[in-house]
Parts: sequence; structure tokens; C-alpha cells
Amino acid sequence: MTLELKGTSFIAGERGSRTGKTFTAFSPETGEPVGPEFHSASQEELQIATANSSIAFSHLYRKTGKEKARFLRTIASNLEAMKGELVERASLETGLPNARFEGETARTCGQLRMFADLVEEGSWVDARIDSAVPGRTPMPKPDVRSMRKALGPVAVFCASNFPVAFSVAGGDTASALAAGCPVVVNAHSAHPGTAEIAAFAIADAVSECGFPDGTFSLLFSADYKIGAALVADRHIKAVGFTGSRPGGRALMDIAANREEPIPVFAEMSSVNPVFVLPGAAKERPDEIADGLFGSFTLGFGQFCTKPGLIFLPSGPGYDSIVSRLRHLCEGSEFHPLLTEGIRNSYVSKTTERGALEKAYEGFGVETCLFEAEWFEFLEDRSLAHEIFGPAALVVGYRDVADLHDFEAHMEGQLTVTFHAGADEADELPEWVDTFERKAGRVVFNGYPTGVEVCQAMVHGGPFPATSFAGTTSVGTRAIERFTQLVCFQDAPDAVLPEELRDGNPLGMFRMVDGVTGRH
Amino acid sequence: MTLELKGTSFIAGERGSRTGKTFTAFSPETGEPVGPEFHSASQEELQIATANSSIAFSHLYRKTGKEKARFLRTIASNLEAMKGELVERASLETGLPNARFEGETARTCGQLRMFADLVEEGSWVDARIDSAVPGRTPMPKPDVRSMRKALGPVAVFCASNFPVAFSVAGGDTASALAAGCPVVVNAHSAHPGTAEIAAFAIADAVSECGFPDGTFSLLFSADYKIGAALVADRHIKAVGFTGSRPGGRALMDIAANREEPIPVFAEMSSVNPVFVLPGAAKERPDEIADGLFGSFTLGFGQFCTKPGLIFLPSGPGYDSIVSRLRHLCEGSEFHPLLTEGIRNSYVSKTTERGALEKAYEGFGVETCLFEAEWFEFLEDRSLAHEIFGPAALVVGYRDVADLHDFEAHMEGQLTVTFHAGADEADELPEWVDTFERKAGRVVFNGYPTGVEVCQAMVHGGPFPATSFAGTTSVGTRAIERFTQLVCFQDAPDAVLPEELRDGNPLGMFRMVDGVTGRH
Repeated sequence: MTLELKGTSFIAGERGSRTGKTFTAFSPETGEPVGPEFHSASQEELQIATANSSIAFSHLYRKTGKEKARFLRTIASNLEAMKGELVERASLETGLPNARFEGETARTCGQLRMFADLVEEGSWVDARIDSAVPGRTPMPKPDVRSMRKALGPVAVFCASNFPVAFSVAGGDTASALAAGCPVVVNAHSAHPGTAEIAAFAIADAVSECGFPDGTFSLLFSADYKIGAALVADRHIKAVGFTGSRPGGRALMDIAANREEPIPVFAEMSSVNPVFVLPGAAKERPDEIADGLFGSFTLGFGQFCTKPGLIFLPSGPGYDSIVSRLRHLCEGSEFHPLLTEGIRNSYVSKTTERGALEKAYEGFGVETCLFEAEWFEFLEDRSLAHEIFGPAALVVGYRDVADLHDFEAHMEGQLTVTFHAGADEADELPEWVDTFERKAGRVVFNGYPTGVEVCQAMVHGGPFPATSFAGTTSVGTRAIERFTQLVCFQDAPDAVLPEELRDGNPLGMFRMVDGVTGRH
Repeated sequence: MTLELKGTSFIAGERGSRTGKTFTAFSPETGEPVGPEFHSASQEELQIATANSSIAFSHLYRKTGKEKARFLRTIASNLEAMKGELVERASLETGLPNARFEGETARTCGQLRMFADLVEEGSWVDARIDSAVPGRTPMPKPDVRSMRKALGPVAVFCASNFPVAFSVAGGDTASALAAGCPVVVNAHSAHPGTAEIAAFAIADAVSECGFPDGTFSLLFSADYKIGAALVADRHIKAVGFTGSRPGGRALMDIAANREEPIPVFAEMSSVNPVFVLPGAAKERPDEIADGLFGSFTLGFGQFCTKPGLIFLPSGPGYDSIVSRLRHLCEGSEFHPLLTEGIRNSYVSKTTERGALEKAYEGFGVETCLFEAEWFEFLEDRSLAHEIFGPAALVVGYRDVADLHDFEAHMEGQLTVTFHAGADEADELPEWVDTFERKAGRVVFNGYPTGVEVCQAMVHGGPFPATSFAGTTSVGTRAIERFTQLVCFQDAPDAVLPEELRDGNPLGMFRMVDGVTGRH
């Protein structure tokens, strides 16, 4: 199969116009533009997309779990059929190796199929039935039944750093479609070609499965105007976003100021502190240095779970770990970052911390390892800020009391990581107790990059890591973000969704009069 | 037991000062102030309350389900021990009969014990375990475990219309404490004495159970300043509110504009449309008229689920129902409303619709039944707005297509209700399908007032009914609002909360490798 990129938006089953402001992708390796030209969607096209998403919603809302599962699996198969083009284009637009996108495509298809399994099985809706007690005094007890249902059209923003798995057909889209919500995607201008290929996979699945045209749209835009208008659009009922803190906050503000405020599920910013306890530093300095280096330079340091802040105990362990980290950094080649903007931000923030600015081809930069003394770190709050790219700051602490002090002003994080020595296991519960309230995930003797897609995963955390600490953007719980609760009182059986009918026709787990089971 | 009201705030285990701006409650029956004087909390007292709530949080976060259950049950027992004073004072401050508060106290204690049972059993935390697969390629699969935990200190706003069940010790407080969140309550100035009595019940339970002082505070305030400052306070991590749309929206805006935005779970406004289909109007006009009258005048029309908008088919059914409703209204006495503000708003909105203004003792008003032709209703959108108090609007529709037209511009509601005749059951699925996306609860052949407290209840709905359609403020799911998700990766068993340990020591329902059960 050969795909020809057209460079136009997908507007509810039609391709968009070629009249909007144009832009291209760039090769991070050369810094040169790569074809074709992409055309920004117009405000009118946006309105057509969202109005159709609203129409599609009333159809998707009624789709059974089986129908939604078939649709999600069709998207996955379509993506796999286009894998060659997808991998090649994503690699061209990001400067990341093909293997990365082999993996990302597998992850994306795995996510789609995970949600397909989830909605086909059905228990995720949290169906509950409280039976009537007509003879209760002073008032009869009504029959009350409730479950989660789709919320409405969802705006999804593609992430710069995950062109496949957190973009057009990524986790937010998969979970929104699984819930029964149409999706309008705002493409990231750094990888429009990758977006267009993934959009083909979804648009084809929409036709193949006979879903309404408004189920899916993709809007290209040379600037922020379309994204801002999308979040403000009255048809949109929720937003999924992965990106920078200022970007996420801007969308949160637009959403909060609407006549009808809507939730923005934004995953934004994290330095992912790693705490190496003295025993661990002593017992396995090389292993820890190798692991940290691998983790903070993975994907050229452009993961939201990159360990950007490493706490090492002062003393011999410190020196062994840092000298090995330095050695590994010196041996590493320069890396192209994803965009010129990311490169410039990286260069500006690293030179501010004393790195020398060097010119590399394309958007290339080199890894940066910074060090700070404890007092220096405490005095300069900016040292705890995220630098997106292959940089990390090592902070030497004097004793473990320092770390507890740090917790008091630590911002919310996606992850915190502890490395403990053989004799330090007893101390861990206290550490966890202190830090778990500030992070979505606590990692032990490991590294935070690599977010397993599974039932139990939480890719979340308190602000500014995300906008809602009660939610996750990875794992099956992600579907709950895009739902509303609906309740039926004294409803005739025929009126009820199958999930709530007598006799449990779908064989799901339900809570009936307080008892959970397949009944 | 005799309680003496002091009129001062409860600040983390201490009573507040008597230096703030003073105010009193009023008797709605006479319109006269009733003692004692209440003293507004100072900004400094607010800060002491919230700072202590933050300290208390780190203790409450670690409390076991059993410990929290004992605390909640102690509050319930204390409330019951004070029931005489509570009922008498609530009746004095609201003009509502004692029997109402006998019921409301029982409901409040029932809620507290329901959450006690919930957290003692434990499965509500949605514990999930995905086991490690060390040999998986290309990457080993880590052990991942997660659950819901407490979010942080919660600000609770007392509702004007539920001085007991949605106020100091009401549903928001019960669900927040059950989750493990300290609570800072903003008292409603209309029933401060009732608030003080309920606060005694909680404060005593805090000491009896050895919970930290910051677990509970109650702030009195003569104006909105303390409430606004409370929502803006950095220690507060979520807000529970039941009240007016402008009030809820003001708090949402403050929360959204914080440096760290927080969720406001606001239950605000609903006209609770009732659709009487032609067959039902013909078959049981008297029963429907009696039921509607009882529902829209219950609690003098001051329930958020009051049916304020009644759709009747034009024709004979219309006339029978309306003439009986008019007869019932004429036979009803004037009623005092809760506050002078509510009375004035009711009088202004009802006179705007053509009612005659009459002067009654205290905050008294009379029931108002309005009628509108279909075109009149469509032209004047304000007719669909809520009037808080014993008023309802009857709209005559020409045929059922009219009702479908109405849905397109209907705002989100807490409830919608259908009355269908014996031959109309087949039409119901289509009705439900159209309307369920706009309401938290769909009621059949019944009336929306009376919100059953149970596992399946949803007291929620799309904006402006509430701020988050995915949540409920009544029923066990209300606890989820005040939680965050926490995940552990490759954690030693000793570090894990009991809920996530090997062997399931608490015997809860958990999802282990995708399978749900008590394992």
C-alpha cells in the first residue's frame, strides 16, 4: 500500500480545504522542511467537525460494547497495515529511530485492543442496582439502577513527544472512543504527516464499521488558534491533552471560562525525582548510574517520566555514581530534539545552568548533567523545574532529613523513585508515606520511564503533573475520564440499557443490593 | 443534655474569637432575628484551620478503614444524642416542621454509617494488581499495583435548604472524611445554630477517636469573604458545594484561577422537567396532579429536585390535571421560605410571571402555578429557569414532537421524569434515549423529590445541574470525588498499603491480573 499525504484536515468524513495558512514538518536531523505542505483548518471547518461530532454522539452513545470493540480493533488492524509508512514518516518528522516507532505502533494497537476487550466485557461501566422495597416505611424504596455512559465529544491534543501512542490514535482517542465519545483531534504541527497516516486508519475504520462520519475529525493548524477554538467550542464536552505546563494551563483556563465549563485532562509536567538512599548508592553505584543514564536519555530525554532530578547521598557513593554518569554523558553523541522550539528551550535552560552552547546539525543538542549542593538547590527553586530533553540535575543531600524537608515544597509529580539498599527496606514505608501523596506512581529500585499499559497503571499525579489527581491517562481507568453517571428510577426493564436489565444479559460484574458479582 | 450555643467558629479543636463581624439567624416565620449572636471567623483563623487541616491530612491519610468507620459512627451517635436540640434549632432557623428534621437527622446518620460500612469493607478503593512478568521480551513487565487514596483537605459549603443532611455533617463531609480527607466547613449564615450543634457532634468525635485537631473546622461568616478565601487557600484540595448557580459558578471560577487549580464539586441548579405523555394524562390525571403538587411543594418547594417544569399534552388530560393542581394550590396555606433573600427572589420571579405580590408574615409566600402555551414557552427562554420555592410552570405541548424539539436546547438537569400510559411503554426507550444524556437521574411514573441514599443513586447531571457529570453527591460513589489514584511499581510487600498486599489481608474485592474477586 502506498499512501499519498494530502496535507488537509479530516472533517467528519470529508477532507478539508487547501485555503488555510500552510506549514510543513521539519527534519530534526537537518533542520530542513520536509514536504508536503499542510493546510490549517478554517474556523468553519472546525465548526463542521464539532457539530458533526455532536450528531455522531447520539449514535455512539447507543453503540454496544461489541460494536465499539470491533471499531477499535479495526483501527488497530488498519494502523498495522500502514505500519511501514507510519514508522518511516514518524522517524523522519522526529529524528527518532525506526525501532522506537515499531514499539510505539505496537503500544498504540495494544492500547486500542485493551480498550476493545474492556468494553466488550463491559463491567467497566460500574453497573449498580438497588432493588425496590415497596413496603418500606415511612416511604417505599424505589428501584434505582445506574452506570457510566459516554460524556460527549472529546477534543484530543496530539503530544509532541509521542507522535503515535499519545496522538491521533493514541491513548486519549482510544479511551474516548471506547467510552462512546466522538473525537476531534488537534494535530501537532511537528508531526503532521504521522497524524495524517493515523487519521487514515481511523477514518477507514469509521466507514468499514458504519460509524457516523462525525465520529472522528482531525484538524491541522499552523498556530494555536484552532486548538483554542476547539476547547471553547460548545459541542466539546471534555479535553485530553499531553504537553507542556503553559500549554495545558492555557487550555484549562479556556475550558474554565466557558459558559459551560468542561474538564481538561491535562498531563503536563514532572521532574520525576529519584531518591537514592545511602545503602543503595554504596551497594550498586554502577548499576544505578547506568540505569539513570539510560532512563534520562531514553527518547533523547523527551519523556514526561524522564528522571530530571536525582538525589544522591554526599560521600563515596555520590562520587562513583556521578563520575560514571559523566563518563556515559561524554561518550554519548549529540541528539536532535523534536522541534526547533524544544531545542531552543533546552539550549536556553541548560546554558542558564552553565552548559556551553554548541551548534549541532539540525535540532541537535548534547546531554547535560548538572550538579548542585544541597543549599544551592534549596535556595534556587528554579533548579527543580523540568528541562525537556536529555538533561538531569544531581543534588547531593547530607542526610535523609534533607529529603523530608524537600518534600514540603515539592510540586506534584507523575513519578517518584526510591533506590534502597539491602538494609534500608525497613525505612521505605516512611519514605513512601511522605512522598506518595505527591505522585501518581512510586517506583522501587527501578526507573520511571516505561509506562506499562495495564489495568493497574496510573499515569497521573497532583498538579502540575496533571490537572486531576483522581484520573490517569494510561491504563484501563483512563476511560472513566470521558463518562457521565446516569441513573434510572423505577424504569421498566425494556427502557434500561442491557447492562442494567434483570437477569444480567451481558454477564457482567454488577453490584446488586450492595453485593458485587456476575449477577 | 443541654447545649449552649456560643456563636463562635471551630478552629481545629479550639473555639474561634468573638471579634469578627456579627450576625444572627432569623425566624422565617416571624422574620425576626433569633439569638445568639454569631461571630465571623477572621482570615487568620481561616489560615489556622486550613494549615491544621493539612497537618491532619498526613495522619488521616494513614487511617485504616476500621478507624475511619469508628469515627464516622461516633459522629452519627453524637448527632443522635443531640437530636432534640438539633431538630428544635433547625426548625426555628428554617420555618420547617420538626418532623422534617427528625427525617433529615436520620438521613444524615444513615449516610455517615453507610460510608462507615463502605470504608470498613474496603473494596471501594478499586485496588488493582498487575503481576510482574520478569521474562517478558523485549522488556520485563513490572509489578504494578494501584488504588484510590485521600486527596487532601476539603472545603464543604453548607446548603441553605438542607441544614442537616447537606451541611456540617452532611453528605459532602461524610464522604470526604470517609475518603480520609480533613474538612473545613463554611457554615450557612441562615442556620448557624444548627451548624454549631452538628459541629459539636463532629468535634467531640474527633477527641473521642483521637483524631488530629485539624480533622475538622467550622467557619462562621456574615458575608462571602471567608468562603471565597477558603476556596482560594492553598491547603484546600477540593470543594463540595450545594447551592445556587451563581454561587457555585463563583467558587468554580476562584478554584480555576488558583496557582494550583482544584476541582469544585458543585450541585447547583435544575428545573427537573416532568413529561406527562398523553396516555398517562388520560388514564390517571388525579393521581398525577396529586403527586406533582406533593412533589413541588415538598419542603415548601425548596428542594433541588423540585419539579419546576411540567409538560402536559394539550386536550382533556391537560384540563383535568391543571384544574386539580389549581384546586390544591388554592387550598394550601402560605409558607415561610428559608431566608429573606430566597423570599425576595421568589417574589420577584413570580411577580415577573404575573403573580400578585402579597405580604405575609415573616418570609411567607404562597404557591404559584403558572401556565404557558408551547409557542410562548419556546420564545421566552427564561420560562425554563429555576424558581426556588413552591412554584411550577405547566407547559401544554401539542404533540410529542414538541418535546423532542425542547430537548435540543434543554440545559443539564439533576432529573427528568416520564409519566407513560399503559400503551405508551413501547415509546419510552426513545424518550429515554433522547433525554438521559441531559440528566443525572431518569424517573418513571414517579416524582423527582426524595433522593434515595444508596449504592446506585446518582445525584448529579450535566452542567448547570452540577459541575461534573461524572460524579454524584449522594450515594456511595460520592467518596470518589475526594480521592487521588496512587500506584506502586515493584514495591516490597511491606511498603504497600494493606489493600494492595499479597494474600489480600483485608479480604476485599480486587482486580488481580484483570480478574475481579476477593483474592
